Amino acid sequence: MSSFSSSRARLGAWIESAPIQRLIIGLIVLNAITLGLETSATVTEAIGPLLRLADRLVLAVFVLEIAVKLFAFGGRFFRNPWNVFDFVVVGIALVPASGPLAVLRALRVLRVLRLVSTVPQLRFIVDALLKAVPGISSIAGLMLLLFYVFAVMATNLYGERFPEWFGSIGASMYTLFQIMTMESWSMGIVRPVMEAYPLAWLFFIPFILIATFTMLNLFIGIIVDTMQTMHEAEHVHEREEFEVSMHADTDRVLEELSALRRELADLRSAVTPQPERVG
Amino acid sequence: MSSFSSSRARLGAWIESAPIQRLIIGLIVLNAITLGLETSATVTEAIGPLLRLADRLVLAVFVLEIAVKLFAFGGRFFRNPWNVFDFVVVGIALVPASGPLAVLRALRVLRVLRLVSTVPQLRFIVDALLKAVPGISSIAGLMLLLFYVFAVMATNLYGERFPEWFGSIGASMYTLFQIMTMESWSMGIVRPVMEAYPLAWLFFIPFILIATFTMLNLFIGIIVDTMQTMHEAEHVHEREEFEVSMHADTDRVLEELSALRRELADLRSAVTPQPERVG
Amino acid sequence: MSSFSSSRARLGAWIESAPIQRLIIGLIVLNAITLGLETSATVTEAIGPLLRLADRLVLAVFVLEIAVKLFAFGGRFFRNPWNVFDFVVVGIALVPASGPLAVLRALRVLRVLRLVSTVPQLRFIVDALLKAVPGISSIAGLMLLLFYVFAVMATNLYGERFPEWFGSIGASMYTLFQIMTMESWSMGIVRPVMEAYPLAWLFFIPFILIATFTMLNLFIGIIVDTMQTMHEAEHVHEREEFEVSMHADTDRVLEELSALRRELADLRSAVTPQPERVG
Amino acid sequence: MSSFSSSRARLGAWIESAPIQRLIIGLIVLNAITLGLETSATVTEAIGPLLRLADRLVLAVFVLEIAVKLFAFGGRFFRNPWNVFDFVVVGIALVPASGPLAVLRALRVLRVLRLVSTVPQLRFIVDALLKAVPGISSIAGLMLLLFYVFAVMATNLYGERFPEWFGSIGASMYTLFQIMTMESWSMGIVRPVMEAYPLAWLFFIPFILIATFTMLNLFIGIIVDTMQTMHEAEHVHEREEFEVSMHADTDRVLEELSALRRELADLRSAVTPQPERVG
Repeated sequence: MSSFSSSRARLGAWIESAPIQRLIIGLIVLNAITLGLETSATVTEAIGPLLRLADRLVLAVFVLEIAVKLFAFGGRFFRNPWNVFDFVVVGIALVPASGPLAVLRALRVLRVLRLVSTVPQLRFIVDALLKAVPGISSIAGLMLLLFYVFAVMATNLYGERFPEWFGSIGASMYTLFQIMTMESWSMGIVRPVMEAYPLAWLFFIPFILIATFTMLNLFIGIIVDTMQTMHEAEHVHEREEFEVSMHADTDRVLEELSALRRELADLRSAVTPQPERVG
Repeated sequence: MSSFSSSRARLGAWIESAPIQRLIIGLIVLNAITLGLETSATVTEAIGPLLRLADRLVLAVFVLEIAVKLFAFGGRFFRNPWNVFDFVVVGIALVPASGPLAVLRALRVLRVLRLVSTVPQLRFIVDALLKAVPGISSIAGLMLLLFYVFAVMATNLYGERFPEWFGSIGASMYTLFQIMTMESWSMGIVRPVMEAYPLAWLFFIPFILIATFTMLNLFIGIIVDTMQTMHEAEHVHEREEFEVSMHADTDRVLEELSALRRELADLRSAVTPQPERVG
Repeated sequence: MSSFSSSRARLGAWIESAPIQRLIIGLIVLNAITLGLETSATVTEAIGPLLRLADRLVLAVFVLEIAVKLFAFGGRFFRNPWNVFDFVVVGIALVPASGPLAVLRALRVLRVLRLVSTVPQLRFIVDALLKAVPGISSIAGLMLLLFYVFAVMATNLYGERFPEWFGSIGASMYTLFQIMTMESWSMGIVRPVMEAYPLAWLFFIPFILIATFTMLNLFIGIIVDTMQTMHEAEHVHEREEFEVSMHADTDRVLEELSALRRELADLRSAVTPQPERVG
Repeated sequence: MSSFSSSRARLGAWIESAPIQRLIIGLIVLNAITLGLETSATVTEAIGPLLRLADRLVLAVFVLEIAVKLFAFGGRFFRNPWNVFDFVVVGIALVPASGPLAVLRALRVLRVLRLVSTVPQLRFIVDALLKAVPGISSIAGLMLLLFYVFAVMATNLYGERFPEWFGSIGASMYTLFQIMTMESWSMGIVRPVMEAYPLAWLFFIPFILIATFTMLNLFIGIIVDTMQTMHEAEHVHEREEFEVSMHADTDRVLEELSALRRELADLRSAVTPQPERVG
């Protein structure tokens, strides 16, 4: 290993060492507080420049941290999705937030989510949550297809009369999502629609039943999946151990039996001294 | 096999081959897009004839596909429920959508659901969802009975004063469904009713408790059912394997023991040469 | 057995025989339809007397059926809770529904619920649902206690300013139930209250968290209970069978071994003819 | 043991004896009723002084009970969290409820919750509910972090235009909580916001999806945890018993086998009297 690459490795170990991580966590919490205080007009008036200074300093440390990691780990840096997350979240703050990008200022607070990537317990939970995602992706795809089909139908059927709710596919999908969450679906949407089209319930009630039934199954899928994973992790191991110990018992019995047979054979040869008989 | 029926079989294999299926999937997606675009007045104005042409062409291919399948498989075609689904969904587009049937135009988008019958992953999920249906049909029957009874009662009790909500059995069932989904049940329905009939909560609160409790059990039924099916599929097999291997162990021990007995008998006959003793 | 009591037994068997039960089910369905039709003013105008006649006839048959059962089974009749249910539901129709009891007319439709006690599949489900009740009674008691305590507090705190929602313990309990179901809790109730008492969220948010957490656990309790009951019903049996068969295996081995010992002893006595040695 | 400490122990046993506990339960129920009656202006007018007297007497008994327990158990008293609960709940009543503390009067009813600490069944349930808390604390922490981040963003983005809903971090958190419970999220909040900011759904829909997905997993976590605890409590024990009994079977077989070997060795020494052979 060249002295250069070993110093890179040492730098990588240093930046990920516990004291540095604790410092980073402290800075994130500090940043969370300053970003929170900045939302208050009174506080900003009083100590606005101080808050902005703190924000700049914390940001500088974050940029430095990522720069060090990039230097230390090179291309491997981007292989860890949490690093990519940190990179994007810090990077947002560097984009000049003016004109149409003014909304990016509001996204600065996403930096606080770095707590998730830095505190192991939180990272563990989010990893567990994300592990459930692939298992539900195909049912989510089905859900999206259903939404599209129902949205096109709703736009065709009710778009002209109720442009606010069903004027375009986008508006229809939003309204159908609202209906799926049961929010004001009847008093707010379906009853008014039924005044114009008395049979509209033939469209909306089946939609609600299908959507909630599909969501329910998505939900059940996650439960069953989780339980199965845990069951396997534990019980299969236990059962295998039991099986091994049972077979070991049998092996001991069989060993004992062959010892018996050997002794019997010995006895026989001792009693009946005919050497030509084998058995 | 006659050359005619063999050419039918070859045609059936061809229409269900991967390249043709991919073509069909591509056409469905294309159709989904054109049907979506048709909902926009601006787009329709610009390229309306083109969209209608694409729609016609795709429809023609679908009709041809089903015709080929009908010819190739004959009566067996309708035995696969997914084929029936395709047949109905494509058939809708052929009915002249004018006068009272204008609503059928909106149903053309159901064709996009052919994705479910064509993409195996989606078909697999929907099959799984549908498998849960028979298990809940009896509880759904009970639910329907409850709704009917409560709807008749609500119509008798509140129909005269609140005709919009409880004017007929149909209106009452719709309102009770809304109440079961918790949408504006209190502020929107029950509080106004209680102003006229102060004891109305004695009707609605029990209804909510009974309906949600029954739904909850329907829900639990599906969870337990799913878990059991999966448990059986795996663990029963595992356990049976274990049992078989344990009995095989015993058999080996017993074999060993009878070998021992044989040898002992041999030894005995060798030692005590009285042929009349049998034992 | 006296000829009288045997004729009672025969009568009991006859009234519960399949053809009679089918007739009763048919009459219940017919009655459900007539009671439903009676809710429509147009239909009542046209064939009102006919509907009332049908209702009377069906009721007469039901009364007769219960009278026969009472005669046939005597006191045992009331031991079956489904009989008690039938008795009450039919009895309601016999109370003169006039004056303050006019509401009883609306309860006549409860008779349709006799379908549950007559159709075995429905009865099976309802029995299963009711079996879950004792398991949740203690958590339901806790829930009631919580409601009472929060209702008294809400009445004290907000009763004066918002008499419609929190004017009495009853009103407060109803409003808290509405809040627990999440219906308009914020826009409808808590935001208006917070305008008068800005800290009201300190009362309502904990209530929502505690109430939903308790409901959640009630719900989980039922799931876990159901799964356990089913698990026991099946797996314990399976495991016991397996255990029995494993011990049977051992017994065969042990039997074989004692046979071996007997033979060995025989051999020994044949080889070494000293009668005084026992060993 | 000194006579003083033994009399303390006897006093402690007496205060926790069944008759005294029943008396306390009776007084709690009585107090619950008087506190409930006090909420009614009519009742207070009629028998107000009586109610206040009863309240004072019950309170005096509670204070005495706690004083006796404090004397009997000394510092150990506060080790039982239920005692701490009783202490706080009774203590509230002793704080003079005037001026800014007038709200404490409403908290007197918390005393009724002493039923939970006194009735064993209720205490058992609440203990079980609380046992689920640590398991969800880390996911609750994640939830809080998410709420904070989204609240800061919402305040920055929509605070100026919608001060009532998003004027401060506190207001935003409350509104986001309301949105998470699905209460009027669309018709009440998001649709009005979208009129000013048409892309607001890009903020709210992801929030709803993330928040409900996280809540769902919290929920699933509790289910899986509960089931596992129960599974272990029962099945591990069962399995271990089975394993022990299976190994005992093997031991019997092995014992039988060594008996056989011993007899065989005996036989051999009897048949072949060469003392130098050991084998």
